[in-house]
Amino acid sequence: MQFLSDNAARVHPKLWEAMQAADVPDTPYDGDALSGRLDAVFTELFGRDCAVLWAGTGTAANCLALATMVEPHGSVICHREAHIEMDECGAPGFYLHGAKLLLADGAGAKLSVGGIEEVLAGITRGIHQVPAHAISITQVSEYGQAYAPEEVAAIGALAKAQGLGFHMDGARFANAVAYLGCSAAEAAGPVDALSFGCTKNGAMNVEAVVFFDSAKADVARWRRKRAGHLNSKGRFMAAQVLALVEDGLWLELAGQANAAAAEVAAGAGERLLHPAQSNELFVRMCAEERAALRAQGFAFYDWDESCVRFVTAWDTKPEDAQALGRALAAL
Amino acid sequence: MQFLSDNAARVHPKLWEAMQAADVPDTPYDGDALSGRLDAVFTELFGRDCAVLWAGTGTAANCLALATMVEPHGSVICHREAHIEMDECGAPGFYLHGAKLLLADGAGAKLSVGGIEEVLAGITRGIHQVPAHAISITQVSEYGQAYAPEEVAAIGALAKAQGLGFHMDGARFANAVAYLGCSAAEAAGPVDALSFGCTKNGAMNVEAVVFFDSAKADVARWRRKRAGHLNSKGRFMAAQVLALVEDGLWLELAGQANAAAAEVAAGAGERLLHPAQSNELFVRMCAEERAALRAQGFAFYDWDESCVRFVTAWDTKPEDAQALGRALAAL
Amino acid sequence: MQFLSDNAARVHPKLWEAMQAADVPDTPYDGDALSGRLDAVFTELFGRDCAVLWAGTGTAANCLALATMVEPHGSVICHREAHIEMDECGAPGFYLHGAKLLLADGAGAKLSVGGIEEVLAGITRGIHQVPAHAISITQVSEYGQAYAPEEVAAIGALAKAQGLGFHMDGARFANAVAYLGCSAAEAAGPVDALSFGCTKNGAMNVEAVVFFDSAKADVARWRRKRAGHLNSKGRFMAAQVLALVEDGLWLELAGQANAAAAEVAAGAGERLLHPAQSNELFVRMCAEERAALRAQGFAFYDWDESCVRFVTAWDTKPEDAQALGRALAAL
Amino acid sequence: MQFLSDNAARVHPKLWEAMQAADVPDTPYDGDALSGRLDAVFTELFGRDCAVLWAGTGTAANCLALATMVEPHGSVICHREAHIEMDECGAPGFYLHGAKLLLADGAGAKLSVGGIEEVLAGITRGIHQVPAHAISITQVSEYGQAYAPEEVAAIGALAKAQGLGFHMDGARFANAVAYLGCSAAEAAGPVDALSFGCTKNGAMNVEAVVFFDSAKADVARWRRKRAGHLNSKGRFMAAQVLALVEDGLWLELAGQANAAAAEVAAGAGERLLHPAQSNELFVRMCAEERAALRAQGFAFYDWDESCVRFVTAWDTKPEDAQALGRALAAL
Repeated sequence: MQFLSDNAARVHPKLWEAMQAADVPDTPYDGDALSGRLDAVFTELFGRDCAVLWAGTGTAANCLALATMVEPHGSVICHREAHIEMDECGAPGFYLHGAKLLLADGAGAKLSVGGIEEVLAGITRGIHQVPAHAISITQVSEYGQAYAPEEVAAIGALAKAQGLGFHMDGARFANAVAYLGCSAAEAAGPVDALSFGCTKNGAMNVEAVVFFDSAKADVARWRRKRAGHLNSKGRFMAAQVLALVEDGLWLELAGQANAAAAEVAAGAGERLLHPAQSNELFVRMCAEERAALRAQGFAFYDWDESCVRFVTAWDTKPEDAQALGRALAAL
Repeated sequence: MQFLSDNAARVHPKLWEAMQAADVPDTPYDGDALSGRLDAVFTELFGRDCAVLWAGTGTAANCLALATMVEPHGSVICHREAHIEMDECGAPGFYLHGAKLLLADGAGAKLSVGGIEEVLAGITRGIHQVPAHAISITQVSEYGQAYAPEEVAAIGALAKAQGLGFHMDGARFANAVAYLGCSAAEAAGPVDALSFGCTKNGAMNVEAVVFFDSAKADVARWRRKRAGHLNSKGRFMAAQVLALVEDGLWLELAGQANAAAAEVAAGAGERLLHPAQSNELFVRMCAEERAALRAQGFAFYDWDESCVRFVTAWDTKPEDAQALGRALAAL
Repeated sequence: MQFLSDNAARVHPKLWEAMQAADVPDTPYDGDALSGRLDAVFTELFGRDCAVLWAGTGTAANCLALATMVEPHGSVICHREAHIEMDECGAPGFYLHGAKLLLADGAGAKLSVGGIEEVLAGITRGIHQVPAHAISITQVSEYGQAYAPEEVAAIGALAKAQGLGFHMDGARFANAVAYLGCSAAEAAGPVDALSFGCTKNGAMNVEAVVFFDSAKADVARWRRKRAGHLNSKGRFMAAQVLALVEDGLWLELAGQANAAAAEVAAGAGERLLHPAQSNELFVRMCAEERAALRAQGFAFYDWDESCVRFVTAWDTKPEDAQALGRALAAL
Repeated sequence: MQFLSDNAARVHPKLWEAMQAADVPDTPYDGDALSGRLDAVFTELFGRDCAVLWAGTGTAANCLALATMVEPHGSVICHREAHIEMDECGAPGFYLHGAKLLLADGAGAKLSVGGIEEVLAGITRGIHQVPAHAISITQVSEYGQAYAPEEVAAIGALAKAQGLGFHMDGARFANAVAYLGCSAAEAAGPVDALSFGCTKNGAMNVEAVVFFDSAKADVARWRRKRAGHLNSKGRFMAAQVLALVEDGLWLELAGQANAAAAEVAAGAGERLLHPAQSNELFVRMCAEERAALRAQGFAFYDWDESCVRFVTAWDTKPEDAQALGRALAAL
C-alpha cells in the first residue's frame, strides 16, 4: 500500500489510449494536430485567451514560465519552502541566468500579502541589490494547502501594483480545484502563467505551461527549444494533456486522490499538521509508530523527525486509504 | 508515403509493451529498477564501463554530455553544419553558459583531422580568444555519412593529444553501426560521451547519454536535474531504452531503415549528393520534379534550392521505398 | 619608436589633472557630482538625449550595451572579424547568457547592408535557429576603416525595419569622427548605444557607454553592478571622460593620432591593404623587411604572414611617424 | 567630517606617484613589467606560492575567485549578511552561472564552524538540492569583526574535510591584520583565494585576487578577460597594488584607519553593537541624536532604525576622529 508519492502512481488508461491513438505520422516537434489544439482547449477551460506549451517536467514548466517574467539581474519572490527553492537543484538559477529567489515566510508554505510585502520592504539598497521581477506561488502549497480564490486575487493585485509578474506552480493544481470546488479560472486567479500539472495526476511525462499572455508564450517557445524540451514527437505530449483536460478527467482524478486523502485524514485526526486540502498529508508520528505502520504494509516518506508525509493519487485504492485511516486512528 | 523525418515515425510495438510493463509503482525519478539496469546493459554493449542517463531529447543529450567537458570560457569544435550549431536554437550556449562553437569544414558534414587542426591553428591570441575544450562529431553526419572506425580513432587521438574532450552526437548512431557492419564499440571509438539516439529509431521520447567516464556522468546527473530533464516517472524512459538495446532491436530497426533508404538510393543514382550510408538521402532535384513526386503521394523535405531530403525510418514500408526508388529513376 | 598599440600610449596630462582634481571625498559608486554630469555633456555632444555609464574596458562597454538589446535566446549580427567575435574571449556569450554572434562578411571588416541581409536570409528554421536581435558595427572597423554617415544610416534603417537593436563599438570612434570631418552625431547615426572609446585616446582605464534610450541605460545600470563594473570611486572614471569630452580634447587627440598615421601611410604607399582612415594601418611586408624595420628601432605587431599592423596614438611623435614613413618608403 | 565610507576616501600620494611612474609605454593588458612582479611580491608577503590577478572592484575580485571553486550547479556557503549576498546585485549568480548562496548565521556577521555545519546538515535531498562547493568568509566581517587565526584555521579544516573551496573576501583584510597584530599569512589561514582589498585602503580602483593555487589563477585569467576586467593599460592597476604592498604601506594605512576608529569607539562606549576591531563601527543611536551629530558636521550612514555606521579611512584626520569620539561621549 504505497503512499510515497503521486509520482509513483500509474498512467491512466485513457492516457494510454490517447498516446496510442497519436501513434501515426505527423509533423514533428509541436507542429502536429494535437499540439495545435491545446490553446483552444485551455482557453475554454479558463475562459480567457491561453497559449499553451507542453514540457516534460514540472521543473521545466516552472522555469520556462518564470523565464518570461524575470530578467537575469532580477529575482522571484517565493516561499522559503517552495519547490523551486528546495527541490529543483538550482534550476531557476540556470533558466533565469543567475536571478535570485527571495524567500518569504507564511503558514502552510503559503505566501501571504504580508509576507511578500516584508520581502519587498527589505529591498532598499538600489543598484546594489537585485530587484523583484515576479512572485511565484504553489497551488496547492508544498504542505498541500490550497489558496482560496480571494487569496490568489490579493497577491495578484499586489503583483500588478508593483509591476511584478505572477506565476503559479500548479503541480497539484487539479487537487486545489477539486478541493476548492471553484472553477479553474478562480483557482488560478490573475496569474500570468500557470504550470498545470499532469504527471502527478495520471500522465506519463508531461506538464502544460499555460500562458495568459501570448507574447510570453512566444518567448517561451524559443526558451523551450533552447533548453532541449521541444520533444521531436510532440504529439505524444499533447495527447496526454488533451486526454486529461478535454473531458474533465483531470478534475475527476484529482477528486479521487483527494477523497482517498480525506479517508486517511479522518483517521489521522489531531495528528495532522495542516488541514486536509488536497492529496498530501503531513502527520505527526514517532519512530515506533512509523515502524508499526510499515509493518502493516504502508509505504510513506519520512518528512522530518516529527512527521511523515502520505500522498495519495488517482489510483489509490479506497480500501487502502481506509485501511491507513484505521491504522492511524488505532495508533 | 512519408519520407519527411524519422521523427514522424511510429513507436515500435515492443517499446509500447515495455512502457506498459513499466506502469507499476516504483521509486520516482531515476531510482527505479529499470533505470538501475542501464549501466550494465550499455557496459555489455560497448565492452567498457558505461554510466548512462536517459534524457528526453537529442538536444538535451548533446548538451548534457558537452557540459561535462567544456567550461564556460571554452569552446567546442564541431562541423559548420552540425546539429548543435544549426538546429538547437543555441542550446549549447545555454547549457555551456556561453561557451562557443568553433566551426570546421569537411566533406559530407564530417569533421576531419585536418579540418580540426585548421581550427586549432587559428587559436593564437591567448587569453583574448576562447580555448578549445572539446570536439563533437555526429555519427552519422548531418548528410547521413558514417565515420569509419579509423576516422573516429584518428580524431580521438587528436583530441587526446590536445587534451580535449570528445563527444559523439549519435542521433542516428544505430544507422551508422548498421551501415558500417562493425561493433558499437568500433563505431563509437574513443569518445568520452555518446548521445545514443532512440527517438528516431522507434522510441517515443528518450535518448541515452552514455558516458565512458563515470565522473562525467556524476556531473551530468546534477546538470540533468537542474535542466528539468529528470523526469519524475523515469521508469518509462528507461523502459524504452532497455527495450531497444537489450535484445538488439536498435540495430535491427536501423537496418530496416537503412535498407529502405538503399532502395530509394538505387533509384536516385547519380542524383545523390552523398553516398547512401544510412537512412538519409540528399537528392538533386528541380522544382518541377519535386512537384511531380509530390503528385504521386511522396512527402519529403525541401533541403535547399538544389536538393531535397528523403528520410526513411524503421517503419517505412519496403513497397513505399521501392515505389519512391522507381519514381526517382523515372524522373 | 612604438607603433604596437594605442593601448600602450600614455595618459594625457589633462586627464591626470582631472583625476587629481577628483581626489576629494564624494558619494561612492556613481553618485558623485562628476558622474552626474555625464548625461548632459553627451546630450550636448550628440544633440539628442543621452544616458551615459562609464565602464572600465571596451569589452565591458560593448557587452553591457548589447545586453540591453539581445535576449539569451537571440543573436547579434557582426562582422566575422569584429572585436566582439575575435578578441573578447567569449565575453558576449557570458554577458548575453549564451546568445550567439552571427558572422557576416564585408570588405575592410565593415558590415554592409548586403552582408547583413545575407545573414538574415539564412535564418529560416524557425524555432530551431536563434533569431537576430541586434546588429553591431565597429567605427572604425578592425581594419581602421570608417563608416560614412550614409552607410551607418543605411544599416540603421535595416535594423529598424527588422526590429533589431543597433550597437556601435566605438573603441576608436574619435578617430572616425576626426577622419570623416563630420559631427559625432553623424558618425554615430541612429545607433541605440555606442561604446565611446577613451582608453586608446588618452585615458587610463575608462570607456563611456552612451545610450540614446534611457530605458536601456536603466537596465545597463543593474547589469554593470552585477558584472562588477560599478567602481566604488566612480568619480575617477567620470573625471577622465569629462576631461576628454567637455572641451573637445577627444577629437583633438584623435586628430593627432590620425595625422601621425597619415605620415606613415604616405610612406607605405601601395603596400597599404586598406586606405588610411584612422590610426591603424595594415601594411604588406615580408619577413626580411620586418627585420630591417625592427633593426631601425620600430616596434609593431605581426598581423599575419603577409602584413604587419602599425598603430599610432595621440602621443606618437611626429618625427617618429615621419621616420617610419621614410623607412617604409625606402624598403 | 566624513565617516560615510572608506570608498569616499582619497588616493594615497604614493599611489599617485606609482601610477605616474607607470605612465610609460609598456605591453598592454597584463603583459607589462609591473603586473609581472605581483606574484613574487605576494609570495613573499604570504610565505607561500601566490598567483595574483588585479581586478577593478571587490565584486569582480570575489566572483572571479569563487568561479574557480564553484560549478554552476553548486553553491557557496556564506553569512546571511555577507557582501556577496547583500550588496553585489546578484553578481555571484552571474559569474557562477546560477550557483546559489547558502546562507548561514553567526554573531557579528562571522561564520562559525557550527553555523556552516548546520547548513551542510540541511543538504539532504541528493540530486534535488544544490551541493556545497565552497565556503566564503569576510575578513573583517560586514560588522567589522576580525576572525582570529584559529577561527580561520578551523573553518579551513572543515572546508578541507568536506572537499570545499575556501574563499576570503578581504575588502578590509588590511584592517584585520592591523587589528590582529598577526602576519598576513595567519590572518588568511588556509584559504584557496583571497580578495585582497586596496581601493578602501588608499587605492583608486584596484583589488588583488590572490590565489594560493596557480591552477585556479589560470582559470581566473580566462574568466577575467571574459568578464571585461582585463584592463588594456594594466600597468596602472599593478602599480597601485605594488605601491601598497611592496613597502608595507597597506598595513600602515590600515593601522591609521583603525586608530581613528578606536578614538571614535572610545567615545561610543556602551553604544557599540560590536567591539571595535577595524575601521567600521556600528553605534546605537536615536533619530534626535543623529540629527545632533549631523548638526555638528559629522557625515555618516543610517544603518537601520536602531544604529548608524561610522567608517574611518587612512585619511581620517585624528582630530576629526577625536571630535567624533567626544561628540558621541557627550550624547
